[in-house]
Amino acid sequence: MAHDDDTGHAVPEELLRLRASIDNLDAAVIHLLAERFKLTREVGRLKAGRDLPPSDPVRETRQIDRMRAFAAEAGLEPAFAEKFLAFVIAEVIRHHKAIADSQAAER
Amino acid sequence: MAHDDDTGHAVPEELLRLRASIDNLDAAVIHLLAERFKLTREVGRLKAGRDLPPSDPVRETRQIDRMRAFAAEAGLEPAFAEKFLAFVIAEVIRHHKAIADSQAAER
Repeated sequence: MAHDDDTGHAVPEELLRLRASIDNLDAAVIHLLAERFKLTREVGRLKAGRDLPPSDPVRETRQIDRMRAFAAEAGLEPAFAEKFLAFVIAEVIRHHKAIADSQAAER
Repeated sequence: MAHDDDTGHAVPEELLRLRASIDNLDAAVIHLLAERFKLTREVGRLKAGRDLPPSDPVRETRQIDRMRAFAAEAGLEPAFAEKFLAFVIAEVIRHHKAIADSQAAER
């Protein structure tokens, strides 16, 4: 049996089943990322309060190696894991700079 | 008490504690993304086998709305959730096209 999507194409049952699982994983990931950004906001405040630089290349290199190793073990392309981490860290550094700027403005 | 990092800067205990939790969340996220890409590879094979297009704008619009709503509830910027989904979907479509091309080449 198959359902129609909004464009009138038949969507196979199997595709609907896979999409439901993808949606569950996406919900989990987005909630974990929400927690992650709560922690990095704390990091940002801590760094700004002590005038530590927003980025930390030594820490980032370690994170990249770790994520690539997990990816390889889990059957994900290490290059994608690295791109993903770069994507998240770019957002974090954007937040850290904003926190540092607003703390500097309050001084 | 504080530890030194590789560059000789003192790293506050609090920062080490936050980083340990960030690392745990990153491990969880990368493993969930590995499962997500297993499912989308199945989707790619299924779509290629039935000559369904690699991308599905109606489905994507629904996914974006859902991720933005989760983000807003969870205290994450909805714009970031949307960017994140776009980042993941771009990778998925790259995979789908590769699968479709290799199946077409086998015919």
